[in-house]
Amino acid sequence: MSAATLASDQSVSTPLPVLGRDVRVPLVTGGEVTYAALDYAASAPALQRVWDDVAAYAPYYGSVHRGAGYLSQLSTDLFENSRAEVARFLGCREGDQVVFTRSTTDSLNLLASVLPADCRVFVFETEHHAALLPWREAQVTCLDAPRSPREAVQTLERALADREPYGPALVCVTGASNVTGELWPVKELAAAAHAHGARIVLDAAQLAPHHPVDITASDVDWVAFSGHKLYAPFGAGVLAGRADWLQEAEPYLAGGGASRKVLRRADGGVEVEWHATAARHEAGSPNVIGAYAIAAACKALREADFGRLVERERELIARVRAGLADVPQVRVLSLFGEDAPRVGVISFVVDGWNSSHFAAALSAEYGIGVRDGLFCAHPLVRTLLGADGGEAGECGAPEEGQSLNAIRVSFGAGTPDEHVERFVRAVGELVTDGAKWRYRTVDGRCVPDTSA
Amino acid sequence: MSAATLASDQSVSTPLPVLGRDVRVPLVTGGEVTYAALDYAASAPALQRVWDDVAAYAPYYGSVHRGAGYLSQLSTDLFENSRAEVARFLGCREGDQVVFTRSTTDSLNLLASVLPADCRVFVFETEHHAALLPWREAQVTCLDAPRSPREAVQTLERALADREPYGPALVCVTGASNVTGELWPVKELAAAAHAHGARIVLDAAQLAPHHPVDITASDVDWVAFSGHKLYAPFGAGVLAGRADWLQEAEPYLAGGGASRKVLRRADGGVEVEWHATAARHEAGSPNVIGAYAIAAACKALREADFGRLVERERELIARVRAGLADVPQVRVLSLFGEDAPRVGVISFVVDGWNSSHFAAALSAEYGIGVRDGLFCAHPLVRTLLGADGGEAGECGAPEEGQSLNAIRVSFGAGTPDEHVERFVRAVGELVTDGAKWRYRTVDGRCVPDTSA
Repeated sequence: MSAATLASDQSVSTPLPVLGRDVRVPLVTGGEVTYAALDYAASAPALQRVWDDVAAYAPYYGSVHRGAGYLSQLSTDLFENSRAEVARFLGCREGDQVVFTRSTTDSLNLLASVLPADCRVFVFETEHHAALLPWREAQVTCLDAPRSPREAVQTLERALADREPYGPALVCVTGASNVTGELWPVKELAAAAHAHGARIVLDAAQLAPHHPVDITASDVDWVAFSGHKLYAPFGAGVLAGRADWLQEAEPYLAGGGASRKVLRRADGGVEVEWHATAARHEAGSPNVIGAYAIAAACKALREADFGRLVERERELIARVRAGLADVPQVRVLSLFGEDAPRVGVISFVVDGWNSSHFAAALSAEYGIGVRDGLFCAHPLVRTLLGADGGEAGECGAPEEGQSLNAIRVSFGAGTPDEHVERFVRAVGELVTDGAKWRYRTVDGRCVPDTSA
Repeated sequence: MSAATLASDQSVSTPLPVLGRDVRVPLVTGGEVTYAALDYAASAPALQRVWDDVAAYAPYYGSVHRGAGYLSQLSTDLFENSRAEVARFLGCREGDQVVFTRSTTDSLNLLASVLPADCRVFVFETEHHAALLPWREAQVTCLDAPRSPREAVQTLERALADREPYGPALVCVTGASNVTGELWPVKELAAAAHAHGARIVLDAAQLAPHHPVDITASDVDWVAFSGHKLYAPFGAGVLAGRADWLQEAEPYLAGGGASRKVLRRADGGVEVEWHATAARHEAGSPNVIGAYAIAAACKALREADFGRLVERERELIARVRAGLADVPQVRVLSLFGEDAPRVGVISFVVDGWNSSHFAAALSAEYGIGVRDGLFCAHPLVRTLLGADGGEAGECGAPEEGQSLNAIRVSFGAGTPDEHVERFVRAVGELVTDGAKWRYRTVDGRCVPDTSA
């Protein structure tokens, strides 16, 4: 299938309306175009419905919890109902807690803070830093990158079986890679974890925006995700799942909201009784708008028929992959190979191009926003590049030898066909004709050289 | 000065427009009124200008940092400019860092995580739990409530001088009490701290929305505040000040954004090089909208002439205090006495009334939103009540003996005169005539009994 036949395929259904869909940006070559936001894996635009819901609520915003006023009661109900909506979206079990955090990173740092004593953590080196690094107090086993889902399960099983002592353990695994977009065998990994007396947390940052997540069906113990990747960029995230470890641990943050009762002791010190509910880990005034925005996104995705969105995204993925396959100089990064199921996140390198230069040209000459770098998954990208990776050189000059960085294109429920078609066309033109402009590095950013 | 003469004084200048200023709420006695938001100390409404700025930016929202697209670059610049605007608002010194957190609670928990080894912490028992509780790893000296600013300074000086060993120390103090609204002698406390080789962090959660904060002039080492009290309720807060402790400590959260380089070691483990800038403590995608909203609020307050706002608030405070003084059954809570300078935060109890009942009647019968409880400052409120405090009883019944809870009324830059006048009138009527409705406790909330 060539890019030409793809461009003529207009059968794909329409995207969900998002903010910024009409934003025009200038081109260095003159004129302007509608911005093509193809960096969803970093941050997705807000769904129009999320924005509308937030805008409708904003005048009714009030202090939550002990506020006696009408708006405080309304806001408290809205906040707690947001929790319930998220639980429904994730298919939570009875007794699961939904804690509002600020992001996936925050959610996994929270979970790291509630690990029982002597809990070992198992992570693949392929994880995002948010999943790789938070386990600072625990003994971490970092597993080599598997080259198939089956190998992932086997590697994990072996590592769990071999652990000494055979004590408490947590597995942290992504649902979809933020580099390759490939789906991980979550259900099988969960079964392996449980078979070996371990628990498992699913990093759903990249999965949840693209694919239904069911905590009950996949039988994971916790799920973490971020609002800003789920079309709700208002500073909130979620950790949902088993209550026991959360209830038994010290609060994540110490402060009001988490404390039920605070007394001075006779010796002058202070004694605290903490809440046992989700509030235990939500000290401080909660980000009500952020939580409500996430709930609004969950509702919008549920009501939009998530299955249809998945189907549509699959067609966009096929278009991009076919378009990239038509350019021999392009190498798509993959762990699990051609046929692995994936979400709309695709990383690649271009022979003879510095990735930052290529990304800058896509932006300046085509109005397309992608990302270049190591995507906060340094060990994985280095493994895939077969190189040491690191800082990019001067971006104007084509690279010699191996790429140090990659380019990532990512999209989702708000992406119109045209963005993907423009991207495929731009890649072909840049590789064939070269960039039309000169570029230079300023403050670590590759930008058009407008000095001449 | 009586409530009647106050009501006729129309000389006070106009408030800043806020969201929700036209929201109508139903009264249990029939009809509806414009909602009077008098719980600013918990959470203030968004300034209309903050909302307008956020709404104008939202379509341009994009991933920050390594995103190559136009909107990513715009968002990165906007995020970093927000930091600069906050630094300007706080009068930061050269070299100070501005870290975006989620709230004051989060800011102080962050600071707690970067304390040098063997650092002792000194806090008055009068602090909000956010300032009282985060120092979990440190040895904390909890100081008795002083009854004057002078006594506060003396108490602190004595405690610091007496510490053994005479090692590193941090003082944490509020700028304005979240219970009494009274201003603390920040500059004098800072001088005392520094004279005794200690550092000081200012909890400006209640000060910053009401009064200019100048980190240089007051010579404090750090300032913490929350967006949601500063008319920018989008889930962000700030810790600003000295870079050294921040740069030398382990990152607050571990994850992407905070990590500059991550490598697998030969032994299979992972080695991380962290950033030394504010990003070190901002792992995960930052809350760009929240940070920008704070910057927009800082700018709006600066441009509105903060001195004029302070003057206007002073007149509102005088109205409320005079109105409450006219009701003999009302006792206003105070640490520093009648003449202490204060912001628009006033707590009180009413003889013969359960505070939750009183607050519920203000809401249901007058459309006024205040707060009742212990305001996340349990030791202080108990000290001021001269009682053990704790859970409120059934709210329908008048209280016998000492109050267990208090009522807090608070206001700020968006409060029209009418709200304050309605509040003063309502207090008088409730005390004289009693509530017009019956109330009962449902799920811990005191609400109108509509069962009959």
